[in-house]
Parts: sequence; C-alpha cells; structure tokens
Amino acid sequence: MELADQVLTGDPWAIARAISIVESESTESAGLVGQLFGHAGRARVVGVTGAPGVGKSTLVDRLTSEWRRGGTSVGILAIDPTSPFTGGAILGDRIRMQAHADDEGVYVRSMATRGHLGGLARATNDAVVVLDAAGKEIVLIETVGVGQGEVDVARTVDVAIVVTVPGTGDDVQALKAGIMEIADIFVVNKTDRDGADRTMTEIESMLALRDTSAMEWRPPVLKTRATTGEGVPAVLEAIGSLDSVRVAGDARRRERALVQLREILTRRFLKVVEGGTSEARSWNEMLDRIACGTIDPYRAADEILRLVLKER
Amino acid sequence: MELADQVLTGDPWAIARAISIVESESTESAGLVGQLFGHAGRARVVGVTGAPGVGKSTLVDRLTSEWRRGGTSVGILAIDPTSPFTGGAILGDRIRMQAHADDEGVYVRSMATRGHLGGLARATNDAVVVLDAAGKEIVLIETVGVGQGEVDVARTVDVAIVVTVPGTGDDVQALKAGIMEIADIFVVNKTDRDGADRTMTEIESMLALRDTSAMEWRPPVLKTRATTGEGVPAVLEAIGSLDSVRVAGDARRRERALVQLREILTRRFLKVVEGGTSEARSWNEMLDRIACGTIDPYRAADEILRLVLKER
Repeated sequence: MELADQVLTGDPWAIARAISIVESESTESAGLVGQLFGHAGRARVVGVTGAPGVGKSTLVDRLTSEWRRGGTSVGILAIDPTSPFTGGAILGDRIRMQAHADDEGVYVRSMATRGHLGGLARATNDAVVVLDAAGKEIVLIETVGVGQGEVDVARTVDVAIVVTVPGTGDDVQALKAGIMEIADIFVVNKTDRDGADRTMTEIESMLALRDTSAMEWRPPVLKTRATTGEGVPAVLEAIGSLDSVRVAGDARRRERALVQLREILTRRFLKVVEGGTSEARSWNEMLDRIACGTIDPYRAADEILRLVLKER
Repeated sequence: MELADQVLTGDPWAIARAISIVESESTESAGLVGQLFGHAGRARVVGVTGAPGVGKSTLVDRLTSEWRRGGTSVGILAIDPTSPFTGGAILGDRIRMQAHADDEGVYVRSMATRGHLGGLARATNDAVVVLDAAGKEIVLIETVGVGQGEVDVARTVDVAIVVTVPGTGDDVQALKAGIMEIADIFVVNKTDRDGADRTMTEIESMLALRDTSAMEWRPPVLKTRATTGEGVPAVLEAIGSLDSVRVAGDARRRERALVQLREILTRRFLKVVEGGTSEARSWNEMLDRIACGTIDPYRAADEILRLVLKER
C-alpha cells in the first residue's frame, strides 16, 4: 500500500513518516501533499499561542481531553523553536506522547523550526493536510508566537487562541508583535496568581484600541487554571460560538492557501536562481560582488530577474 | 542637492528621510541604496540582542558613550517588534533621542517590524547602508532576537552581542531559538541580582555543547551592570579582540549580501506573480482553487512557475 493510502487509514506510523517527509521537504513531499490534499479540508484547525511557561501545553492537553470525551479525534502539532543542537523538541515530544499514549484518537508531533526561508508555515500547513487527511477532526497547533513564521502560522488557523499569565507586562508587550491582531480568543491562564484581573483589563484595553467596526467577532478574554481544568469548558464554548459566527472559515482557508503558495513559490524560485547547475557560479559571483561593494543588491536582483524571468 | 548627496554629508534630516524611504520600500528606495552603496562598507556593525527588559537599551547607550568619548561616530537602529497600532516604537525613539540630543555624532532611529514578507532584515541592512554612507563608524543594531527576521539581522552583523539577566531560565531557553549559535559575545547584565553566576554557568555549559573545532573565536561570557557602567569596558575590549581575530568580517559581509539579495529577489518575484496586471486575476483564481481543494499548492506553484520562468 502506498504511504498516502496508509495515511488515509489513520495509521500513526504512516502519519509520522508523512510529516517527516513534508518537514524535510524532500522530493517526495510535493507528490505526497498532492495525493492527500483532496482528502483534507474537514478538520477544524485551532492555534494556541503564548510565551514559554504560560501553560500552553497544559491547556492543549485539557482541551484535548475534553474533545476526546466527546469522541472527537485530535492531532497536535507543537511548534518548538528550540535550536537543533539541544534536542529539546524531541524530548518534550516524548514526554507529551506518554500522556495520550494509550489513546489512538490522539496524535502528537513536535515540529522544529529549522530552515532559513520561512519554511515553518509551509511545513506546518502541510502537516495539517496530513493530519486532516488522516481523519483528525481537530488539529491543535501550539506555538510560542514570536517571529514572522509563527505569526504566519497563527494567521492561517481557523481559531487563534492567545494565552498569557497574570503580571507579565513584558509578555503582553511581546504579544503585540503581530499576534494581538489575529487573536480570536484570549486566555489568561494561572489565575491563582496575583494580578489576573489587571492582566485581563490590560488586554481588554488593548482590544479597545482595535478598529472593531469591520469585525464579525469580538475576542472574549477568558480566565483559566489549566492545571485544574478550571475555565477550560468556557474556552471550548467560545471556540464553538466562533464556529457558528464564521462561515466555514473561508477567509482563513484562503489565507492558508496564500501562505502556502507564497512559501512554495519562493523556495522553488530561490532554488532556481541559487542552485541551477550552470547558474550556481554566477550566484556566488553576484554575492561576492555585493560583498565587496561593486554592485548594489537591487541592481544585482534586476540582473538575476532578467536572466530567469520571461519577458512581459 | 540630491538626497543621496545630503546623506553623504551626514545631515540628520537627510538620514531620517533616507531610512524612511528604505523602510517603506517605496519606488525610490532601490535607486537611493544604489547611489549610497558605493560609499558604504566602512562601518563596524554591532548587534545587541536580548529579551525585553534585560537592559539592552542601557547597554547600547553606555557603549555609545564610550565610543563617543573616543570621538567615534555612532548610528543606532532599534528594531522594535511593537505592532503598528500601539505606536510604542515612536515613543521609545523620542525618549531615547533625548539622551544624545545634543550630540551630532549619534543618530538614533527605531525601525518597526511591519510587513509580511520578511522584509525586516532587508530594511535594516538598507538602513545600515544609509548610516554607513553617512559616515557613522559604528552602527549599533538593537533587537529582541526572536523570530527569523531578527535572527537574519543578527547573522549579518559584524559582532553579535547577546544580553541576558540572572535567573531567567526562560530567557536563556528562548535564546536557544537560533540566536545562541551566532553570538560572538555573551553579556549577563544586572549582575546585582541573585543568580548571576548560575546564569553564566548555564551559558558556558550551552557553549560547551557547541562544536568548537571549526570556531575561530570562543565567545566570552561577560558580566555588566549597564546602569552603573560596570563591566562595559570589558565588552568594548571583547569587540576589539574580535575585530583583530576576524579578517575584516568578510564572511559576515557575504552573509549580509545573501540575506539582502534573497529578500529583494523574493519580494520582486512575488510582485510579478501576484500583482502583474494581467496575472492578478489568475493569482486570485489560483488561491480560490487551493482554498476549495481543487488544486494542491505544489501543483499550483508548478503552473505559475511555468508561466513566468524562462525555459531552461
């Protein structure tokens, strides 16, 4: 049986192998996604974003348990910005796999944010296609929420949840970096700590600055204690309400298509201009010429584009 | 007098205007950078990276004062990941301008991290060209150090300084995200706080994990109290030693050329495929087809590339 067919049966080994392929963007990856794409499109994609230590994983685990209680299958993608040389992602993955190890309805996977060319959103969206095609009804994406790659991920989910904790002015500050604008639901976790109400007020007042006239949905600010499960049902409820407000997440789906297509195009285009056997020398020469100041990068780009693009 | 000529005289108004142009990437920006490029290449580019609240700005100000004492001119670019709608960047800029307001040898500028297509590194490097051509001998770039755009910035500086504070395990953790690998100098700031030595040991032990065989330089871990100036001369000394080890930063300059060229090419290429008058409709149609599942993004990319690239 082909790998794509095995993925469609929901076989965890096949899912793991398929995600590794899309993550590495080996030559098989385009073909594999092509095979699976027509079988995807049914999963609800939920993003959970927040700084390290706010309790994202605990919240994700709680949400997962709630969905599992209702018989809904869940795929979890943990985007881990750990550098390759520490191996943190893999360790965390193993620990978390154990929590749902006995449950065939849950698939957990960490994705490392390697690679230069902003491939994170592409790899993540391809992994969503794999899990979606494999029959997962919910795909949870957990991210730290910093940097363009992660913001791109968060922009493409159906439901974007931003998690913070009381008393971290800095965290709320850091969240401003693009993620505030795309949040559908705010969660203040660890409300046993001091200052929960102040943090909620801070978020509310940031929300008040947004132009709400064009908004179909005003993001609620919810309190949770993920460790005890307190407040988690309200988060699920908010996700449900959002689903009923939005018409099948069409805009998000188009956004996802945009991010995917841009990344794939960019990567292939750069491969052509940087790699193409005969061109490789001229690419390196061009870099040398820029580095020693004999040509500026804009004129260099003009020359390269003239070489590779059709006349128009 | 043309704007480029005015920049070459070091006129602060002209510098401000030129950076605004490269930041917005208006149509003038390519021409302007082209004019200035041949006059740049002399400045030493120093990056100062760290989480919010570690005291980057204070350290940058101290370093600036030291350089100014020796008569060296300094340009400061503060990369601020504040979202456009809060206006934090501009406020911070104004406050900091005041500290060196009387000193013509210092130019301070905040850059906002707007834009989707990873334009941060390009805009920053273009701003470096402006400051460099304007005669600034040192260009200090201050960044929060998260996300690919910022890592790209940090990779292209001549000297990368990573700042942390005692007792923030999370911060050291967050720094793993790519920035650890490129640091030339580590600074543990606010050493009046508890745990400074433990933080230093943590960084040292992370460094011990690196493959040092190919390294020309072992990054020192230095203690500072930027508020009092304690330890700052040792940082300057380390920068000096690094300069003498590296042959004119050639590798970094080539890296800078690479980042620049990739970003400019990517942006122009996407403009061609997404925007070009007659193509615009087919681009939107393609997004719709991906969004509703009738074509996968890889095949869509193939079709588009066939349309725009020359046969090879």
